[in-house]
Amino acid sequence: MSSLSDRALALDAADPLAGVRERFVIEDEFIYLNVNSLGRLPKATIKRMRSVVEDEWAHELVLGWNHWLNIGLDIGAKLAPLVGAGSGEVVLCDQTSVNLYKLAVAGLRHSGRTDIITDEGNFPSDRFVLGAVAAAGGGRLILAPEDPTANDVQALMTSNVGLVSFSHVGYRSGAMLGAAAVTNAAHDGGALMLWDLAHSAGAVPVELNLWEADLAVGCTYKYLNAGPGAPAFLFVRESLITELEQPMAGWFAHEDQFATAADFVPASDIRRFVVGTPPIVSMVGVDESIQITSDVGMKAIRTKSLALTDFFIEALEMMPQHGFTLVTPKDHHARGSQITIRHPAANQISLALRDASVIADFRPPDLIRFGFTALYTTFAEAAAAADVLDRIMTTESYRTFDAERSGVT
Amino acid sequence: MSSLSDRALALDAADPLAGVRERFVIEDEFIYLNVNSLGRLPKATIKRMRSVVEDEWAHELVLGWNHWLNIGLDIGAKLAPLVGAGSGEVVLCDQTSVNLYKLAVAGLRHSGRTDIITDEGNFPSDRFVLGAVAAAGGGRLILAPEDPTANDVQALMTSNVGLVSFSHVGYRSGAMLGAAAVTNAAHDGGALMLWDLAHSAGAVPVELNLWEADLAVGCTYKYLNAGPGAPAFLFVRESLITELEQPMAGWFAHEDQFATAADFVPASDIRRFVVGTPPIVSMVGVDESIQITSDVGMKAIRTKSLALTDFFIEALEMMPQHGFTLVTPKDHHARGSQITIRHPAANQISLALRDASVIADFRPPDLIRFGFTALYTTFAEAAAAADVLDRIMTTESYRTFDAERSGVT
Repeated sequence: MSSLSDRALALDAADPLAGVRERFVIEDEFIYLNVNSLGRLPKATIKRMRSVVEDEWAHELVLGWNHWLNIGLDIGAKLAPLVGAGSGEVVLCDQTSVNLYKLAVAGLRHSGRTDIITDEGNFPSDRFVLGAVAAAGGGRLILAPEDPTANDVQALMTSNVGLVSFSHVGYRSGAMLGAAAVTNAAHDGGALMLWDLAHSAGAVPVELNLWEADLAVGCTYKYLNAGPGAPAFLFVRESLITELEQPMAGWFAHEDQFATAADFVPASDIRRFVVGTPPIVSMVGVDESIQITSDVGMKAIRTKSLALTDFFIEALEMMPQHGFTLVTPKDHHARGSQITIRHPAANQISLALRDASVIADFRPPDLIRFGFTALYTTFAEAAAAADVLDRIMTTESYRTFDAERSGVT
Repeated sequence: MSSLSDRALALDAADPLAGVRERFVIEDEFIYLNVNSLGRLPKATIKRMRSVVEDEWAHELVLGWNHWLNIGLDIGAKLAPLVGAGSGEVVLCDQTSVNLYKLAVAGLRHSGRTDIITDEGNFPSDRFVLGAVAAAGGGRLILAPEDPTANDVQALMTSNVGLVSFSHVGYRSGAMLGAAAVTNAAHDGGALMLWDLAHSAGAVPVELNLWEADLAVGCTYKYLNAGPGAPAFLFVRESLITELEQPMAGWFAHEDQFATAADFVPASDIRRFVVGTPPIVSMVGVDESIQITSDVGMKAIRTKSLALTDFFIEALEMMPQHGFTLVTPKDHHARGSQITIRHPAANQISLALRDASVIADFRPPDLIRFGFTALYTTFAEAAAAADVLDRIMTTESYRTFDAERSGVT
């Protein structure tokens, strides 16, 4: 595959984003293609996290709240343009699943209906949360096929469906849905549309307002590189904010947080969907990491992401003898920033890859996922990963790995 | 007040916990009596947080989950003895208000009833969350008087009440409730008892199992010193765990988290009440800080805490001319680790105290709170705070501060 390596070096040399890699700590020997699970550490985050702990907490103590209090709103406003939203429509708070719960309850209540449509391939936590929300109101969770289309929504829509919720990019397939058409189909049926952007934010262009999306949640620790378990974000369309009632009604959602109010008066802005005190040290990681994404811009990120995944697909097509099936769509309009392949020995192959320092991951029963980011994945890494994969298959070395063993990630 | 200062120096010299202060970063000029809002930074936390970011995240990347995955359970097991619980009954996850919501919904559903009793003086977020939970099921939130007793519970109990929820130590008054008697009164009425330990954990002895408590939530960033907004914990009595159904059903609550399960199967242990991926950097702060509390032990902490607050009460009683009313009970059995006083000019006085580097806080309309911790508050600090307070009142310097201004904390 030396021609591939040569081409990779040329592509890296011509890459306008090549310098962005310098903004991350890369001191390991990994060919790291698991950004779809956990992004790398930005160098600026080291300084910022030290500062928030060792300067702010240590020396300002409770007075630090004078600048921490609105951190979720402030970071939300910085995140908003990355997902095509207005600055008052996004807030950083809680975990993705908690945010999904809040918005699903609020959206379903607002619809006055009982049922929710999601899809079979949606992330398990989403299916579980949405199922629990529907069941609590006596409704049903209706499952579309994996990677659903507007037609699937139309086919399953009934007058009981109040909410449609999909992941914009599938965590298994890496397929990207036709978000505007799907949203439109949900609206045609009289339902609200709730997007999960876990595999989209920072990875692909997201245009919540153009899509006319109602609600969204998203994760910051994958393509946004904010650190393990970093807080998530949520989006509510501006015109919908005061119409919704979130179920938890914590003090951060109160119109006047520090009033000794007898009754809960929900804030009339996006704070309405926050609950309690945010974990400040983990929050500042988001602030630093999204700065990099903002500086580069989603247009440039998308261009390089497609080039990287095109390149990797091409490399895979050079080894048809190994029996891989490409799961991720080749169509640019239907592809996220991840390539998924299918093989009966996927688990063993992923273990063999890791043994060779290529960090990709296995998803049962037979998928291997390779996550690429324009911010620090090089074409040389993509070529090297393909080369290792080819070698593992040619030598059948993967057969020596325990098929029953499975990494936690 | 020189005799007070002399006595303080003698008490500090004889204090068996004096050395614990060395385990915290104390480089500011504050007389810091706001640990009831945010505790100080342990020195060990600096190293641990640097390590989790700069070593684990930076170099292990997604493989770090091999040791992060059960961090909430592991820290919960370490926390459990500090609140009189079994190691499988406590888990660290989410924020206090989110945990309160989960357990209140689960408890109320289990009771088959609709109403919740809390008290007028409970922390606003608790009242809001509990009110929202009751309202969602068509029930009522019934308000006992502030700092309620078992008699109050009995008087308000009806066959519709499924849940009683109070803060064990009042955030305003610093009063500690008779937890065993209150729990018993809730049970007598056929309701479950849910304690909020925000101002108790690490501050006073908590004996959840001895009280026969059903449910509890608590905060780690006050007396447990885990850092601004650090994740909270929850407790479910062992025999109740598999009987309850939490509303959110996230993937961390699944019996087999990494199975590609079609349906949600709730874990049969305390994981059942977790939701999603925890914010690791903020989580490790809890691990380090509770180690200090564990090393010292709640018995020694309580002994010194009472001596500190006795000492401060005595100092206040030496200045009757200033018109302060002691709000916190003098009875040891009814006192937390905080002293609250009432004065019509409380806001101005708290601002004047802060101007003199005495960090206490104001709670509307007329309360000043002084939080003490056995881990690092000295008797000399208590004496100095009293001295400053006496001077501010004698010179009436507090009148120069803007009564309309209010700190965020």
